[in-house]
Amino acid sequence: MMNDLFAGVVTGSHANGARKSRNGLYIADIVEMLNACPRQEAAEKLARMPDVRAVAVLDRPEFRRAPDVLALMPVARAIALVSQMSEDRAADVLAAMGEAGEPIIAALTPDLRKSLTALLAWPHDSAGGMMTTEYVAIPESATVEQALAHIRSVERTRETIYSIFLTDAAGRLVAAISLRRLIMAEPGSAAIDLARGRDPVCVGPGTDREVVADLIRRHDLLALPVVSEDGRPLGIVTVDDVLDALVAEHTEDAQKFGGVEALDRPYLETGFLAMIRKRAGWLSVLFLSEMLTASAMQHFETELEKAVVLTLFIPLIMSSGGNSGSQATSLIIRALALGQLRLRDWWRVALRELPAGLVLGGILGLVGIIRIAVWQGFGFYDYGPHWVLVAATVGAGLVGIVTFGSLAGSMLPFLLQRLKFDPASASAPFVATLVDVTGLVIYFTIALAILSGTLL
Amino acid sequence: MMNDLFAGVVTGSHANGARKSRNGLYIADIVEMLNACPRQEAAEKLARMPDVRAVAVLDRPEFRRAPDVLALMPVARAIALVSQMSEDRAADVLAAMGEAGEPIIAALTPDLRKSLTALLAWPHDSAGGMMTTEYVAIPESATVEQALAHIRSVERTRETIYSIFLTDAAGRLVAAISLRRLIMAEPGSAAIDLARGRDPVCVGPGTDREVVADLIRRHDLLALPVVSEDGRPLGIVTVDDVLDALVAEHTEDAQKFGGVEALDRPYLETGFLAMIRKRAGWLSVLFLSEMLTASAMQHFETELEKAVVLTLFIPLIMSSGGNSGSQATSLIIRALALGQLRLRDWWRVALRELPAGLVLGGILGLVGIIRIAVWQGFGFYDYGPHWVLVAATVGAGLVGIVTFGSLAGSMLPFLLQRLKFDPASASAPFVATLVDVTGLVIYFTIALAILSGTLL
Repeated sequence: MMNDLFAGVVTGSHANGARKSRNGLYIADIVEMLNACPRQEAAEKLARMPDVRAVAVLDRPEFRRAPDVLALMPVARAIALVSQMSEDRAADVLAAMGEAGEPIIAALTPDLRKSLTALLAWPHDSAGGMMTTEYVAIPESATVEQALAHIRSVERTRETIYSIFLTDAAGRLVAAISLRRLIMAEPGSAAIDLARGRDPVCVGPGTDREVVADLIRRHDLLALPVVSEDGRPLGIVTVDDVLDALVAEHTEDAQKFGGVEALDRPYLETGFLAMIRKRAGWLSVLFLSEMLTASAMQHFETELEKAVVLTLFIPLIMSSGGNSGSQATSLIIRALALGQLRLRDWWRVALRELPAGLVLGGILGLVGIIRIAVWQGFGFYDYGPHWVLVAATVGAGLVGIVTFGSLAGSMLPFLLQRLKFDPASASAPFVATLVDVTGLVIYFTIALAILSGTLL
Repeated sequence: MMNDLFAGVVTGSHANGARKSRNGLYIADIVEMLNACPRQEAAEKLARMPDVRAVAVLDRPEFRRAPDVLALMPVARAIALVSQMSEDRAADVLAAMGEAGEPIIAALTPDLRKSLTALLAWPHDSAGGMMTTEYVAIPESATVEQALAHIRSVERTRETIYSIFLTDAAGRLVAAISLRRLIMAEPGSAAIDLARGRDPVCVGPGTDREVVADLIRRHDLLALPVVSEDGRPLGIVTVDDVLDALVAEHTEDAQKFGGVEALDRPYLETGFLAMIRKRAGWLSVLFLSEMLTASAMQHFETELEKAVVLTLFIPLIMSSGGNSGSQATSLIIRALALGQLRLRDWWRVALRELPAGLVLGGILGLVGIIRIAVWQGFGFYDYGPHWVLVAATVGAGLVGIVTFGSLAGSMLPFLLQRLKFDPASASAPFVATLVDVTGLVIYFTIALAILSGTLL
């Protein structure tokens, strides 16, 4: 929803952050207050507000109580408020209400019901799910004066008037012009001339919200038209909806990278069982995969019994592999998301990660060797008569594992993208698990090569 | 920079994503093309463009070549282009040019030099660094008609005209009104009446970009005024700059969570040595901390020698602790960033993570016990005569470590916030390292308690 520029803004004295309230509350603060109080109380408080304010509160996507609160209100009041809400938000809220929303939908005017039903058909993270149908469209033949007169007549019912569509006789979008250009132009000139003969950037309703956000950002748009296959405007996605979508996407990516299924609600409002479900799934999958480490260890049981000293460094070596992998993965996920890398760049990345891994592994290996030498030299610990070989094993193991970690961690997002998954599904725990099993095998193989005939 | 609504948009036929070019290129596409070609060639191509187009390209923050390209151009041309750029972007580019920018700054008009120098004084991630001084301000006594006339007269030189400041006789900001309200109002009425007697949301120039983004998002603003301590407007941050800031913040957070210092440039454009530096620092710190695991293992050396079977499960148990910790950390970082949690909520989180950790640890522990029983029962592996006790140790160890991981992982972001660090600095590798050392101690302590008198 793109509200009026400073709608809901009330007052304040200047501080480092936002201004504080003097003679009232910001809508955003009312939203926060209502989110925090019990739903019955929130419903009563909202019911007591004048319509304009109640609608402004309901229109905010941050007002998570909206579906609950509308369900608790007298149906007549709920209908009146929903009718005044911006359509994209009303559709989201009604979708969240499920069955409780049906009496409200049934009582809306046929026109509104039709456009809300159309909006409800699209997934919430698509252009169709984000758009509102409250846009301004005028015939391409209109003059600037006629266009401005039309805008003035419909302003109250439109979410944004800063972007105006020009349509041809068949209703197809031919241009989008800004209010800015319109008010600067000669009243008698043709509106279409302001479009500079160019077609607008636009998307189909099925377009993913990440693509929508990227287009709005790349082209510095205030609003992006959504059009049907035959080019007729269906709605408009405004920049404020994109801000919300970017933040939601950020949260989802961060949770995925941490190895959690994205939560649908804020942390403290997510039920205990839902929280367990969102975490137990991945945790169990990782646990089952990590069991391979036990199998790998069992495989090297003889070596472990002969040289217990080798086990001392297992956690150190494994975690270094996981850490370097997690670094590489986070770098590549973002580079892919920002379009700085494409699928076909995988080999360029591999050619960078290979030497990077060798250098990073070399640094850690050197530190590891020094650590063993110092402990041995000062008598903190006795690594046995073959301590030099043990140190060499640890050093070489680190080079091998960090290199493998960097390579595997950087290739994983490419692999996921190739398999049509979201590259951001590659989580730090997933990379660590992947590297752990292989890391153990690398370590013991190097140990066998170096220590064979002495310790092993 | 908030350009004209569809500035730089050219043409296309409808596809699932953006439209493709028919009779020209989008500015965003030119930017991409110039970013990809050698800097000398980019400079030549840009020099051949008409001013309007060259400035539109330079104005895009995505045009990373801007500082290089301006430095390679004849100074006179560079001066002409910089003078036409939007001020916030010009300041950023000149800052990036360093010494090479000095002849350009010296040749600008005194007014422009003054306002660019003022912008350069603020960090790039503060409101002062993001703002432009090209805003529209009119006296509070103006009528709607006078306001619109003023807007029309200055439109060409202003970044946005959708938000208009009203100032008092002392030049202090008293209100901000939208162009939307202005064009809907009676020409003869007072502009100040449109402000509904409310003060605008505004910030000081030192405000962090995250706070700026949050205010613009929460209040659905198109632009946020930046004011001095005494309340005089200094500039304006537009919503498109906030979109860019959000994406930059997202990248920084993702890289930090992966355990990398934030890269300043795209992956493939970051020099090899810079890349090593950004990664080696954290990797070495983690490595040095992780060395405590070797010390912990050395401490339990006698136990390790007596019961090699215990070592088999070390990687499994340690990684489970790290994974549960990484999950909890990613959840809490985002909840803090979104304001869903405050510092004072730490105990509510702890009271949730404790039972969550116990349940998750219980699930993994059960799976672990079943694994050992099955391998023993089917004769895949012999865990010795005390295999039941070994299984109990592994199960109990998992409960203890996953609980500790969830608690430590969830408390770490709170601790960082308390210490005035960015909670998003808590990386998955950092949490894993924290949990690894303690996890080993928990595991061996439980082993001593259960296996004392039998294996140990």
